[in-house]
Amino acid sequence: MKHYQIIIIGAGAAGIGFGAALKRYDINDFLILEQGTVGDSFLKWPRTTQFITPSFTTNGFGFPDINAVVPNTSPAFSFNKEHLSGPEYAHYLSLVAKNDNLPIQTNTQVLTIQRHPKGYQVKTSQGDFSCRYLIMATGEFQLPNNQGIKGAELGMHYGQVDSFNVKSEDPFIIIGGNESACDALTHLAYLGNEVHLFTDSFGKRKTAADPSISLSPITQERLKHIQDNPNYHIHITEGKHAQEIHQTEKGYQVIFQDGSTAYSHHKPILATGFLNTCHLIGGEAIFDYNQDGIPLVTENDESTLNPNCFLIGPSLRQKNTIFCYIYKFRQRFSPLITEIASREGWQLDPDILEFYRANQMHLDRLDCCEVTCDC
Amino acid sequence: MKHYQIIIIGAGAAGIGFGAALKRYDINDFLILEQGTVGDSFLKWPRTTQFITPSFTTNGFGFPDINAVVPNTSPAFSFNKEHLSGPEYAHYLSLVAKNDNLPIQTNTQVLTIQRHPKGYQVKTSQGDFSCRYLIMATGEFQLPNNQGIKGAELGMHYGQVDSFNVKSEDPFIIIGGNESACDALTHLAYLGNEVHLFTDSFGKRKTAADPSISLSPITQERLKHIQDNPNYHIHITEGKHAQEIHQTEKGYQVIFQDGSTAYSHHKPILATGFLNTCHLIGGEAIFDYNQDGIPLVTENDESTLNPNCFLIGPSLRQKNTIFCYIYKFRQRFSPLITEIASREGWQLDPDILEFYRANQMHLDRLDCCEVTCDC
Repeated sequence: MKHYQIIIIGAGAAGIGFGAALKRYDINDFLILEQGTVGDSFLKWPRTTQFITPSFTTNGFGFPDINAVVPNTSPAFSFNKEHLSGPEYAHYLSLVAKNDNLPIQTNTQVLTIQRHPKGYQVKTSQGDFSCRYLIMATGEFQLPNNQGIKGAELGMHYGQVDSFNVKSEDPFIIIGGNESACDALTHLAYLGNEVHLFTDSFGKRKTAADPSISLSPITQERLKHIQDNPNYHIHITEGKHAQEIHQTEKGYQVIFQDGSTAYSHHKPILATGFLNTCHLIGGEAIFDYNQDGIPLVTENDESTLNPNCFLIGPSLRQKNTIFCYIYKFRQRFSPLITEIASREGWQLDPDILEFYRANQMHLDRLDCCEVTCDC
Repeated sequence: MKHYQIIIIGAGAAGIGFGAALKRYDINDFLILEQGTVGDSFLKWPRTTQFITPSFTTNGFGFPDINAVVPNTSPAFSFNKEHLSGPEYAHYLSLVAKNDNLPIQTNTQVLTIQRHPKGYQVKTSQGDFSCRYLIMATGEFQLPNNQGIKGAELGMHYGQVDSFNVKSEDPFIIIGGNESACDALTHLAYLGNEVHLFTDSFGKRKTAADPSISLSPITQERLKHIQDNPNYHIHITEGKHAQEIHQTEKGYQVIFQDGSTAYSHHKPILATGFLNTCHLIGGEAIFDYNQDGIPLVTENDESTLNPNCFLIGPSLRQKNTIFCYIYKFRQRFSPLITEIASREGWQLDPDILEFYRANQMHLDRLDCCEVTCDC
């Protein structure tokens, strides 16, 4: 059984970025395990979906491209684009992996994780591995959160949609009111479809400056465009909590908490969010979870259940800080490496730490991240 | 004659941002003089022109919105947009000015500047002022650079265009190959016009990661869109240096250095760049200039001709570093205030300095700004 100091589970933005940071700190005894290929979740995005955070080559001015996982790279530079598609971003990640010669074992499903006195044993579809430190970079996109909607399997979750490039005489139903709901709404509306969106609470009403809470600028722009133009056929109904979907002779019926219903010939689109995919791994519990399915961690981003097991990526939460965008969660790679080095007595090159700090990619104070704006 | 410690000439992005920084450092003995209203140049942008740098509310993660002039503000937050128009950005600047209660005298044309032993005398259309420190925030947009094209007055400079929302049977000619040329080209092409662009060197060929050198991601995206779609009628001819424009019976003729010519019924659009408007102020020379019309400054951004007279804004150059975007030039406000305070023996609050540093808006090392990208 091959042993590594560090095993990273997942070769998405978090896993690749963390691996690249380890390489920069000259820590080489690690392996990245990936169930599919590099950037697997991004490859599974709907083909019409693009990044909602813009890419721009601000590198060199202390502002790495906000979608970069390594300071001196930029998706904007790699693709001459501001808003990459999922496959383009997966390509960017594979460029970083290749450039840094990262050790990745792809097509390897993690079956179970077992803790033992000196670390963890990771059983996979391609053999077993052991490690002292386990880094969970499992991401969110591939596990729908259906929020207890009965009959949710009759709908189609946003994450299962191949493309919104569909034209139909029959109206569509979307359940949800945040980023992916607005993305589905605008794409379907652009093509002339009639679209009915039902939501508990519409993201557009939220006025927080933090884009993890309110809609991103590009989504707001797109919504304004379709709402201002009477040629589009959209209907947004708020205060609607979907409880059940069932199939009828006419198609699909959605029943809301207030007793009202909606029909569509098409499967209702569930834009109800995602859960961290570490829920899917067998063996003993890796994390405890809060009521929203978010893994619970200490202030070192360590599992509250398992020592030396850390969470990185978009599921990370610290008090009121939501790390759901790349430019947020990438800031915790370097502090985590510093923590591991401190436990092991490794000396880290202070110039590399300074490099991450100078590029705003080393966030070790968790009291500083409230996003407020005067204007 | 009213005396101030500091007079700032220009209430654009640089002048407003610098004034707001002075306020934060609790320096209040200053005046901003503005020939028009706040954000005057932005109000004069073609109505179809938008920012090529995206706005996003990364505030709170050490990344102020890249178009913000003050860290805790964000054009994306103010307007729920990623790419503001000129008038929207002028509105953002006026929100900052109002929020910070900045002392601005608008509709005041600076006629002459005279140096005297203790500072400067500034004669304006609304009276005379004196100051110890002069901050030239005069911007570039309002002074076309016609690169020695004979008969340039027969063309129409990009900065003089009201809107590219024009449809014509007759082809258009654009002279230039950088950002504004590509903006004119794409807008005219979107409407179905036939457009001929002639350029010495096409920005798209440049592969530098620094967006001050090569085209911005959004411009590259737009160009790709029109170049990939055969429904658009564009023709890009490189290696063409325009020498002369003259009027003929048929319209306008452009003569190139290689002897070839081009005709259009429309005035040729000159997308040949801009010069710093301090060229227009009378009295003694404020700056010496290089061959490109760029004001020459010391490493403190001080005029090489006049002590205590500083340049801020998009004309600023230091060695190989081009400060032509807001996210670049705003980084020199705080170091300049530190320099003035040091000359005057003022104590600055170290927390404010830390605030600017933590937001990547205090750049005092000029050897660190090369924009490079591995991927």
